[in-house]
Amino acid sequence: MNILLVLAHPERQSFNGAMFDTAAATLRSAGHTVATSDLYRMNFDPVSSRRNFTSVKDAGYLKLQQEELHASATGGFAAEIEQEIAKVEAADLMIWQFPLWWFGLPAILKGWVDRVFAMGRTYGNGRIYDSGRFAGRRALLSLTTGGPEAAYRPDGFNGDLGVILKPIQRGILNFTGFSVLAPQVCYAPVRAEDAERAAWLAAWAARLQAVEREEAVEVGRY
Amino acid sequence: MNILLVLAHPERQSFNGAMFDTAAATLRSAGHTVATSDLYRMNFDPVSSRRNFTSVKDAGYLKLQQEELHASATGGFAAEIEQEIAKVEAADLMIWQFPLWWFGLPAILKGWVDRVFAMGRTYGNGRIYDSGRFAGRRALLSLTTGGPEAAYRPDGFNGDLGVILKPIQRGILNFTGFSVLAPQVCYAPVRAEDAERAAWLAAWAARLQAVEREEAVEVGRY
Repeated sequence: MNILLVLAHPERQSFNGAMFDTAAATLRSAGHTVATSDLYRMNFDPVSSRRNFTSVKDAGYLKLQQEELHASATGGFAAEIEQEIAKVEAADLMIWQFPLWWFGLPAILKGWVDRVFAMGRTYGNGRIYDSGRFAGRRALLSLTTGGPEAAYRPDGFNGDLGVILKPIQRGILNFTGFSVLAPQVCYAPVRAEDAERAAWLAAWAARLQAVEREEAVEVGRY
Repeated sequence: MNILLVLAHPERQSFNGAMFDTAAATLRSAGHTVATSDLYRMNFDPVSSRRNFTSVKDAGYLKLQQEELHASATGGFAAEIEQEIAKVEAADLMIWQFPLWWFGLPAILKGWVDRVFAMGRTYGNGRIYDSGRFAGRRALLSLTTGGPEAAYRPDGFNGDLGVILKPIQRGILNFTGFSVLAPQVCYAPVRAEDAERAAWLAAWAARLQAVEREEAVEVGRY
């Protein structure tokens, strides 16, 4: 398979970085072709604006979706965006590795979505959800939390993690056609022992060995 | 009241910009003190990193929450962050004006939260939810959507808007102690007539005239 790994963590030596490295090494050893986007090291700019484009549809008033449609029709995406769109388009499986910040994606990753998932190129003309551009492709969220597992159960003080992830899994991934594999969640690695973190990395590698045959999960509608 | 208005839209002449201007003018006329953060015009950088701080706790390994605690204890926030924290701390009511992008906040606003809502200064030491730092303060999301209202009902193709907003209203606002007022939602202003948009601005102004007496709503746990 062609696999795209995206990393969103400011500390390259972090546990998120180790999960990312484990994924890249495991998947390459298994014979897959792996592309990467290490957003912090790329200094990726997550602010969606006219910098997304080299083309201009309306210089007097910025309507991003209109400019995205125009850029899709004319090849008018900025090089840094075109490159990322091409990576997504090539991927049979996309894995995002990130810490859950404020019940959502770190801004650098949210803005990668805002800028790269452009109307015309990645969705639109009625091609959403089951008929989405990326139908048949799969995506997987691999994340860490600050709080313990008990906090993210339905009766936990932060509430059900599945609900917290729905805007991402349903609203971004399913919306553009991706099937979603069960999220890989490491709870509170900051408070774990080294042996526990090592076991998590080994479990991640073991899962990825067989990921090509893994079934998607139902995210559910709201 | 002291009120903080935050705007996250790249086009200053947009309907979001008009909603922001209406709020500022209405609230000032009503005698309130209004502070603003127009994030795009401020060129606000939403990428959380060492640039959040002038202080350094551990130069060899970046653990953001540890650096936030250290900066909270030593006055070590970068000027652009300190200024935004002070605005939040001063606000009796905080209003965020933004377009819903990919079922969430535009990255520039998500990253404002990532950087400004720092551990130690805005939460922590067990001060979360009902005992949160901002208990007694209120917050209100004012947003626009791309899709029509029917798409955001519980049986709509995007699902219940209340669920989509929960990570923000529950996970960010309630988490730090804010009570949440009902969101102000303008559905698909891009497809509305001028008269309809004018009516929405008038309704927004009318609501804000009486916002000081408005009751908070129950966001609900997940």
